[in-house]
Amino acid sequence: MADPKAPAVILDAPQLGENIGAVARVMANFGLADLRLVNPRHGWPQERAWAAASGADWPLNAARVFESVAEAIADLQLVYATTARPRELQLPVLTPREAAAGLAEAAAADQATGLLFGGERAGLETSDVALCHAVVTVPVDARFRSLNLAQAVAIAAYEWRMTRADAPPAAFRPMAAPADRAAMAGLFEHLERELETSGFFHPPEKTPAMVQNLRAALSRARFTDQEVRTLRGVVTALSRGRGKVLEKLARTKEGRRGG
Amino acid sequence: MADPKAPAVILDAPQLGENIGAVARVMANFGLADLRLVNPRHGWPQERAWAAASGADWPLNAARVFESVAEAIADLQLVYATTARPRELQLPVLTPREAAAGLAEAAAADQATGLLFGGERAGLETSDVALCHAVVTVPVDARFRSLNLAQAVAIAAYEWRMTRADAPPAAFRPMAAPADRAAMAGLFEHLERELETSGFFHPPEKTPAMVQNLRAALSRARFTDQEVRTLRGVVTALSRGRGKVLEKLARTKEGRRGG
Repeated sequence: MADPKAPAVILDAPQLGENIGAVARVMANFGLADLRLVNPRHGWPQERAWAAASGADWPLNAARVFESVAEAIADLQLVYATTARPRELQLPVLTPREAAAGLAEAAAADQATGLLFGGERAGLETSDVALCHAVVTVPVDARFRSLNLAQAVAIAAYEWRMTRADAPPAAFRPMAAPADRAAMAGLFEHLERELETSGFFHPPEKTPAMVQNLRAALSRARFTDQEVRTLRGVVTALSRGRGKVLEKLARTKEGRRGG
Repeated sequence: MADPKAPAVILDAPQLGENIGAVARVMANFGLADLRLVNPRHGWPQERAWAAASGADWPLNAARVFESVAEAIADLQLVYATTARPRELQLPVLTPREAAAGLAEAAAADQATGLLFGGERAGLETSDVALCHAVVTVPVDARFRSLNLAQAVAIAAYEWRMTRADAPPAAFRPMAAPADRAAMAGLFEHLERELETSGFFHPPEKTPAMVQNLRAALSRARFTDQEVRTLRGVVTALSRGRGKVLEKLARTKEGRRGG
């Protein structure tokens, strides 16, 4: 029913079924169909969503539910987080128009993309924003920032649609595709495990911020699968190094003892 | 409360108070304030409008009611009608983006402008569209054209706003500048030295290519100075880990020897 290259829409902890339905409706308006729900507050499915969708049932019928943002975006190669709140993260901040251009470019290179939106009240956790490649901010008036969820999706989806309306030919991209978020999560966890072991995270209360900053910094590079493998090799080598040093040391001691 | 040159929003025969409130909310989001209602179906004022506006009360408080579209737009110098239905009218058809450019140009010449929207079901009378200077059509997917009234206003108002401030808001911390190449070289050499020690580069003849690929991947992130320092800390921590393991091992051996 929709452009297979269109971005997925991921709603984190949406509260109201009406809003989920309104989101499905604007998705249908602009040719999006892949709806993903992370811990909807009142469970799923919710009848009120279908009532609010005014016939745009297919994104709701196909909606998938996840237990974390990380799981919901695991297969995606480019994810933008829409948020109005400033973050202490070193991520690019895009207008919806710039975001649409980025998504279109990625789609032209056959990459799976997504747009992440926070719940009606709480918005997004910074730790989830840190999993994304950039932040999208709708240029609202400073005097009234409170943008309805479906409106935020509408504007992002409209901008996506505008890139299709006058879509240029598929961009030539010699770059390999970025790794999906699951591969990146694997890299992050591997690195953080080793850093934990090595006593890098101190004081302990700063660990979450340090982890987020590292993740944001490394996310910006949009590593390919091959690069992720190489970097895991780097982490392993540096860690394994300990073992080698130990072996050498042991041999040296043996030698000394023997001599 | 809003840009005095912003277009008026004229709603012809709106049915639901909720939708009028939702329109007021998106107007406030994008710096519009002049709301005009032509024959609202359930009279005016309607409490539900204020409830739906989520605090964007001023467009509602100042809303004026008219008995015809002609009266509602009488003082305006440029008016665009938003409609999805084709018309037998020789009027230019604009995208919301083109419309915003036209409105901005008129506003720059101190002209009073407006955007006319039809009611939820019936849309606009062709005779009222004929009072306007052009037709605006949101580029919806042909498979699901039914765009919610407030969404249509949101997209038009968003496009207007984009002509005012074609940049993300200053609320976010600006991205720190990327580190200079000397700092990056320091990071690379540090990392490569440790990788060399740990036996990462094998076979040796592949070392130059491996180094280049690693450097290219990490360069893409455009790390800040702070991030370079953090990453050097990461390399140091992973390397220093060896020392800690050695110390522990030594202590354990001491312990064993002592016991």
